[in-house]
Amino acid sequence: MKVGEKHFRTIWLNADGRSVDIIDQRWLPHAFRIETVDTIDGIATAIRDMWVRGAPLIGVTAAYGVAMQMADDPSDAALEAVWHKLHETRPTAINLRWALDEMTRMLKPLAPSERAAAAYRRAAEIADEDVGLNRSIGENGLKIIRDIAARKKPGEPVNILTHCNAGWLATVDYGTATAPIYLAVEAGIPVHVYVDETRPRNQGAQLTAWEMAGHGVPHTLIVDNAGGHLMQHGDVDMVIVGTDRTTANGDVCNKIGTYLKALAAADNGVPFYVALPSPTIDWTVADGLKEIPIEERASDEVSLVWGKTGDGEIAQVRVSPDATPARNPAFDVTPARLVTGLITERGVAKASRAGLAELFPERRAAAE
Amino acid sequence: MKVGEKHFRTIWLNADGRSVDIIDQRWLPHAFRIETVDTIDGIATAIRDMWVRGAPLIGVTAAYGVAMQMADDPSDAALEAVWHKLHETRPTAINLRWALDEMTRMLKPLAPSERAAAAYRRAAEIADEDVGLNRSIGENGLKIIRDIAARKKPGEPVNILTHCNAGWLATVDYGTATAPIYLAVEAGIPVHVYVDETRPRNQGAQLTAWEMAGHGVPHTLIVDNAGGHLMQHGDVDMVIVGTDRTTANGDVCNKIGTYLKALAAADNGVPFYVALPSPTIDWTVADGLKEIPIEERASDEVSLVWGKTGDGEIAQVRVSPDATPARNPAFDVTPARLVTGLITERGVAKASRAGLAELFPERRAAAE
Repeated sequence: MKVGEKHFRTIWLNADGRSVDIIDQRWLPHAFRIETVDTIDGIATAIRDMWVRGAPLIGVTAAYGVAMQMADDPSDAALEAVWHKLHETRPTAINLRWALDEMTRMLKPLAPSERAAAAYRRAAEIADEDVGLNRSIGENGLKIIRDIAARKKPGEPVNILTHCNAGWLATVDYGTATAPIYLAVEAGIPVHVYVDETRPRNQGAQLTAWEMAGHGVPHTLIVDNAGGHLMQHGDVDMVIVGTDRTTANGDVCNKIGTYLKALAAADNGVPFYVALPSPTIDWTVADGLKEIPIEERASDEVSLVWGKTGDGEIAQVRVSPDATPARNPAFDVTPARLVTGLITERGVAKASRAGLAELFPERRAAAE
Repeated sequence: MKVGEKHFRTIWLNADGRSVDIIDQRWLPHAFRIETVDTIDGIATAIRDMWVRGAPLIGVTAAYGVAMQMADDPSDAALEAVWHKLHETRPTAINLRWALDEMTRMLKPLAPSERAAAAYRRAAEIADEDVGLNRSIGENGLKIIRDIAARKKPGEPVNILTHCNAGWLATVDYGTATAPIYLAVEAGIPVHVYVDETRPRNQGAQLTAWEMAGHGVPHTLIVDNAGGHLMQHGDVDMVIVGTDRTTANGDVCNKIGTYLKALAAADNGVPFYVALPSPTIDWTVADGLKEIPIEERASDEVSLVWGKTGDGEIAQVRVSPDATPARNPAFDVTPARLVTGLITERGVAKASRAGLAELFPERRAAAE
């Protein structure tokens, strides 16, 4: 999406046909840095040290990493080595593994001399496929925003609350939860976004707010505590969030705190939508609350807050006593009963086994 | 309560019979500073610049300010002047006004020569009355904790979640929401406290966590987003929070985010209690959601986070883009239907007009 006047993706191939440019997201929102990466080691560092983050973007970055390896050394041994080298950068990232497997599957049968060109072609396709999925999610979500706008006074914005960053920075472009918002802006529908700060890592304050500011979308930052109050007073027309994993029953695992917003939405009759590309549906899991293990991350993420000092320096400050321990569950599960609908690339599904099976009949067997 | 080995109140009269010592709370949790205040200007600064905060403590500090004035100049003119000087330090603080009115009412009929001694006596009484109220709240809340403990395996702690700081630092001693916790510790009942960070001002991370660490109460800091997830998994046995204002219907106005925790408690069958001295019940208001105006504070409280750098310096960091505006509603209203009980100095009331009228029959007329 746009950063000021210019349109960007999060990753793109340079004119040299070999290197990629990426946005080094570690410095956002305080500095917008673009880095050129032209070695496998550079790709591994960018994934491991979170210059890039977000499942789809990690997958695409890894695909370009495999392509660079093939340009350097297209042997079977090199293909296997790059799989391992990149996989270990973030071993639990499902999209990373998927992209590495996909590249290997496609390249293995080819003659080594054909592999580099084919790998760059496939990496570009994977990037474009992600953009296509997100645009489709956006179009399906846009209908919902359009319906709400039609019930408002002319010119009155549709107020949308979002949590964390399921934005274009987490994908190649458009994002998932943000895709309907960007398409509404393209369609000239007035929108205003309440951006949850999203403690402990502040992805809302740092990334979603930066996206909105860059693209010129009217938005307001709020602390995670404030959303319920705004809903009580009619200041929120709908909630859209992303998801890391959705079960076959429609339970939604997403960033910690999503469940609290879903409760407030239900209590105040505010529609609560989850935007997701269908590959993030886990058809093997039914009850999200019982079956999805929740990662507990380092307590320092709670105790330390990162930002920019008055002098423009980047610094971390401790907000709690040295003697105080912290717990840091990274995700929670929102039960399907609190979800108004799942916005997918195929349409909007009811958050239930039947609703998902209707939209994805080919998965019906898996879901049953 | 204790800070390490020694017991402290938040304010106390010195042996000179004139000056008071206070804990300068601006530096907590990073430094524990005690300041001696022996002038009216010093008292005014301590209240205005929030060296002391919390309604009861502000009132007591102001009462000592009036006493110092009477020691310097016990004239009617001086009595009137100190009312205005102190009232304007925090003009919306109800306890401040109450304490100034109370001191004036009591001193006015006295001969000037009697006023200084009487003023110091009354200030000490007001302090002790606050401690007494809080101990009574603590005893009533202790029964609830004891009942929960009786249903747990021996030695298993009662897990209590609290939001913001309704602790001893906001009062003279014991606090309101924390009083049952401190009395449970005194009684040898094992407790463990989940402390909500409480963005944007982080009173949980800075003050409640410091109180718990100082008194040796087992506790864990969590982000405001995490409480719902913990309740879903049975990690919270009860919630206790304070309140700024409770309506005659039992609606509870408290720090922003309280409502979200009440929703999660209700959704998971976790009892949700509010601790309050009865003077904070506003018998003139019925529907909290419709009738209580919610203060919106400066947006910088959201955009900037205060803490200690790795070098031990105190610093503020900006967490969001410069171009991003923020909204900062300071309180929200939790409807009575979500409140299990109101723990007062007289006992635990149902959060309803009938429940409150039963405990405070003398206010029945006002409430009807």
